[in-house]
Order: sequence, then C-alpha cells, then structure tokens
Amino acid sequence: MASMTTADLELVEHMRFAAHTGSGHAFEIDTQAESGGDDAAARPVEHVLAAAGACMAMDALSILRKMRQEIAGYSVHLEAPRAEQHPRVFTSITMTHRVRGRGLAAANVARALQLSMSRYCPVHAMLHGSVPFTVRYDVTDEADGGRTTGEVRVEGEEPAGVP
Amino acid sequence: MASMTTADLELVEHMRFAAHTGSGHAFEIDTQAESGGDDAAARPVEHVLAAAGACMAMDALSILRKMRQEIAGYSVHLEAPRAEQHPRVFTSITMTHRVRGRGLAAANVARALQLSMSRYCPVHAMLHGSVPFTVRYDVTDEADGGRTTGEVRVEGEEPAGVP
Repeated sequence: MASMTTADLELVEHMRFAAHTGSGHAFEIDTQAESGGDDAAARPVEHVLAAAGACMAMDALSILRKMRQEIAGYSVHLEAPRAEQHPRVFTSITMTHRVRGRGLAAANVARALQLSMSRYCPVHAMLHGSVPFTVRYDVTDEADGGRTTGEVRVEGEEPAGVP
Repeated sequence: MASMTTADLELVEHMRFAAHTGSGHAFEIDTQAESGGDDAAARPVEHVLAAAGACMAMDALSILRKMRQEIAGYSVHLEAPRAEQHPRVFTSITMTHRVRGRGLAAANVARALQLSMSRYCPVHAMLHGSVPFTVRYDVTDEADGGRTTGEVRVEGEEPAGVP
C-alpha cells in the first residue's frame, strides 16, 4: 500500500497556524505584518525552501555513509529570489552544501547530490519542473585541510542559467 | 528589487537538521528511524504539505477579511499519497478547508480559495504542475448552524481525477 503524508493546520490567531503532522510533530507557520501576520514563525515558502535543502542533504548523508565516508559537519545555505508578480514563485533555488570530514572526497559528495537530484529527493522532484535548481558543494577534507568546490550536474539536464 | 527567501540548515545529529530562515525563525527537520533519523521533528515532505495548506489558508483569510467576513475558526486537513517508486513524490494533494463564522457565506470561501489557486499562492503555483490538487471546503455559518461543503474549481483547469 502506498504510504500517506498528512498534516492538520489550526488557526491560532490572525494568520498564524499550528501544524500537526502525521508523524506526530508540531510547528507553527506565520507571515509578516504587511500580510496581516504577527511574524511569530517561519513563512510557508521558507518551509518549502528548507525542506528542499534538508531532503537533499539527508539523501547525500545516507549515500555518503553507505560509501563509508565519515561526516564531521554538514550545513546548507539556500537562496531563492521571488518573482515580483503574483503568485510570487521562486524564480530559482540556489543551494550550497558545505560538508566536512576526515578523508572526505568531493567527488563522492558531488555523486551523492547528483543521485539525490536525479533519483531520490521527492521535494526536488516535485519542484524542479517549475523552479530551476543550482546545487553547489564546498567540501573540506579534514585530514589535509584541502577544500574543493563545484556545481552538481545532472545527466541529461542543461546546467541552470543556460537558455 | 525582487525579494529573496533564504534558509540555513545545520546538521545536529544523524539526519536531524536545524533550520534558520531569513525571517529570523528556527525549526527542526528530521526523518524516521528506517531512514537513519531519530524521528525528532517533522519530515521534509510534511513541511511542504503543511506549507501548501497554510499558504492557501492565509490567502483565503486575507481575501475573506477584505470581504468583511467574520472568521471564528479555520482549520485545514491535508492528505498526500506517496508514489511507491523513488523519488516517492506526492501523487496528489487533497485538502479540506474547514471555516466557521457568523454570517459566513460558503460561496465567498470558495471564491477566496479559487483566487488563491489561480493567482496568489506561490506554494500551489510551484507544485501544481507536478502534483494534482483537490481543494474542498466545509463552511459553517454560526448564525444559523448551516453547513455547506463543496470542491473548488479553477477556471480553465480540469477537475482533479478527470483523465
């Protein structure tokens, strides 16, 4: 049987909603004062953006651990400009995965992120038809302090920015 | 200048990430034990699903308040089956907006949700090309206890479920 993702939202006040998810966890979602909110919690689009980064980072961690790579630190910075006209979609998503580990090979990080984009990450799969993704890595091998940066290419897709 | 949505993620432990968003708010994202997580916070796809519901509910509240409709309660239930094959995308999103208010007209709730879907909600706009949405309303007028349910239709789009 296919599994089901569920969530329930309840209005707290003004624009602020309490979310309870099927996995048993809770968080709040709000918006800025100009939109009638109280700025008490992250915006809907921020949850989407963070979920895109976390989904891909979890895939990469899972794949890197299977490759027996030791991960000492993992962070992701995400930026998404918004269209000026409604519905003010993200016009692109650019993310940089910063990964540290002893003996960590940048090629393995690139390969793990490529697999996430081409095969595993549902958030990327649901968004990338409407929003172009640019995915970068910045890998530090703590054994020798060497640092390697690059951009992930997915086979069969044009790099972002190419018309 | 176009505004920018940003987020930063930092690995806490195993698969659990702390998210800090550009608006200054924080939350955590985790996954289930079978995927190497600690089940300490909601999943990435749950954040996406809740964001879709909250985005549309905030639009509807804004529009209904401009219509001078008094809202006494607003909740949303969301369900999204997942594909069995990777990347395990949502095969559909079904949501029911339950709205209560004195003198509240169901036609206004339906119109507000229709405007959100056709014009205002960025989360819907970014997802609906890859995931079919079914949006229902369940409106209670607290003046007379009357209850009206229905499904929102967006002009120019086929209703969900029609091949």
